[in-house]
Amino acid sequence: MTSILALDFGGTKHTLGVLEEGGREWRARQQVFSPPGADARYDLETVFKLARQLLNGNQPAAIGVSFGGPVDASTSTVRLSHHVPGWENIPLGKILREEFNAPAQVDNDANVAALGEGRFGVGQGMRSIFYITVSTGVGGGWLLDGQIWRGSDGMAGEIGHTVVQPDGPTCLCGKRGCVERLASGRYMALDARLRLQEDSKAGPTLWNEYSDHLEALDGKALSRAASQGDPLACQLLERSAWALGVGIGNAANLLNPQRFILGGGVTKAGEAWWQTLRVTARQTALPEVHFDILQAVLGDDAPLWGAAALALDLLMAR
Amino acid sequence: MTSILALDFGGTKHTLGVLEEGGREWRARQQVFSPPGADARYDLETVFKLARQLLNGNQPAAIGVSFGGPVDASTSTVRLSHHVPGWENIPLGKILREEFNAPAQVDNDANVAALGEGRFGVGQGMRSIFYITVSTGVGGGWLLDGQIWRGSDGMAGEIGHTVVQPDGPTCLCGKRGCVERLASGRYMALDARLRLQEDSKAGPTLWNEYSDHLEALDGKALSRAASQGDPLACQLLERSAWALGVGIGNAANLLNPQRFILGGGVTKAGEAWWQTLRVTARQTALPEVHFDILQAVLGDDAPLWGAAALALDLLMAR
Repeated sequence: MTSILALDFGGTKHTLGVLEEGGREWRARQQVFSPPGADARYDLETVFKLARQLLNGNQPAAIGVSFGGPVDASTSTVRLSHHVPGWENIPLGKILREEFNAPAQVDNDANVAALGEGRFGVGQGMRSIFYITVSTGVGGGWLLDGQIWRGSDGMAGEIGHTVVQPDGPTCLCGKRGCVERLASGRYMALDARLRLQEDSKAGPTLWNEYSDHLEALDGKALSRAASQGDPLACQLLERSAWALGVGIGNAANLLNPQRFILGGGVTKAGEAWWQTLRVTARQTALPEVHFDILQAVLGDDAPLWGAAALALDLLMAR
Repeated sequence: MTSILALDFGGTKHTLGVLEEGGREWRARQQVFSPPGADARYDLETVFKLARQLLNGNQPAAIGVSFGGPVDASTSTVRLSHHVPGWENIPLGKILREEFNAPAQVDNDANVAALGEGRFGVGQGMRSIFYITVSTGVGGGWLLDGQIWRGSDGMAGEIGHTVVQPDGPTCLCGKRGCVERLASGRYMALDARLRLQEDSKAGPTLWNEYSDHLEALDGKALSRAASQGDPLACQLLERSAWALGVGIGNAANLLNPQRFILGGGVTKAGEAWWQTLRVTARQTALPEVHFDILQAVLGDDAPLWGAAALALDLLMAR
């Protein structure tokens, strides 16, 4: 029996899965959370130990890895983690190959999640998809001709930092009006807090719930308040959907993929958000450019399924 | 001796070339202009007759074609011409195969020019380029992994209709502030004429030369006037370079190609235009996204060289 090992290194949550070749259900699957202060060495030791337990004495035929941060996929080397210290230039693929005596491929979570949805999720059968995660930030990954398109620096997919409103608010990236600044949960929450501090009547539902702990107001709170008709929440979500819609329409004009697949917390903001997004994307793209926009189906498991696909591709390449 | 036939069907100007396999100079090359009122049948007969003369009794081993309008490259069928009647759904590849008893591949001029610059021009040795023509309109073509990326409807490359200023002026495409509306020669000239009609002092150099035949004011006139310091011409060219720069920066964030290659009349507008373009593109792209922006070197010959590359690829695939 040929089994592969799939690993998803998140910021504080790591997921492991063991899959048989050709299988569609995990033979074993487990999650482990890092304690505060954990570093790369701690995470590696924890995950390796757990992997050995899951493998139960078997050797994996191949290993695929999703990593939550920049990766040089050509050498399977982690460049760094924005959340966990000690990940600078760690040759994770090489370490895994030596530890488990099996070929390993590492890529960043946006690319790997795209591959997961493309092979096992709502992108099955599509030749070209763009997977976008709209959460704290906004990132994306391309599958072109069924393969991850990484770009010449491994930086492809950064729709979050395309500019759609050049006179818009300033983002941490230094630009104004990029998609992430307008569409992400973190920035929407920031704008809501700033606006409520200026004028508490702008968002009565939000103010009612968060006036004494504004710092806790997050993207989910906005979705809830919007569903209750809070005008500030509705306005911020409308702007989010508009900005992402322009970004998607622009990407459609540039690359003409078959399908856009959207995951992440903000995509659960409700029907009004999706409606504005779809209308805006359709208006931004040329009439001859066809595409659809679907919600991701694998949820938080997309990177783990994509890691499995990376491993299966290694088997194919043998 | 194996020779290939390269054809470039423009609106009113058609170019033909015969190249030996492995050659870097045309064995024969000729241009022919269509008279007003010419239709598809006339153009085909003229070009076929001239091709037979150039081939001088030899049979081409393969035929590559650039067509100035939408093409279904999967079947080498012309969809239509925006300039010449009678091109609706013409199976040009099939007609050529039967006429010359050789395999033929047809694609639109933006894709074929990209291939030309990629294989024979300033994109040689690059794995991923985006070729952009900035002329009457703004169009583009991708080479990814050395091959044309057409997208699922054959519509990829439409950077001219990406939106960079959503509250900007309205384009014929129905949207506001798309790159073509701000950066193309035709629209810059339109805006110059409108502005001069409102206020002739806005562009004294332009007004001096064109006040009695404003309709003749075109993109070239703007470049000339800008080089003489005309404020309206400078302002319109600055906006053109800014809009295209944002479009290029956005494309860099999305696809991370190695090189952007720019052809077309507007790219001859002078150093100030290039300076603004490069600075804006660099500011729009993330710091980790590297690329350069170079002027195309093949000029009007890019589609003909690309057509030769299409034909050579047919030989490789035998």
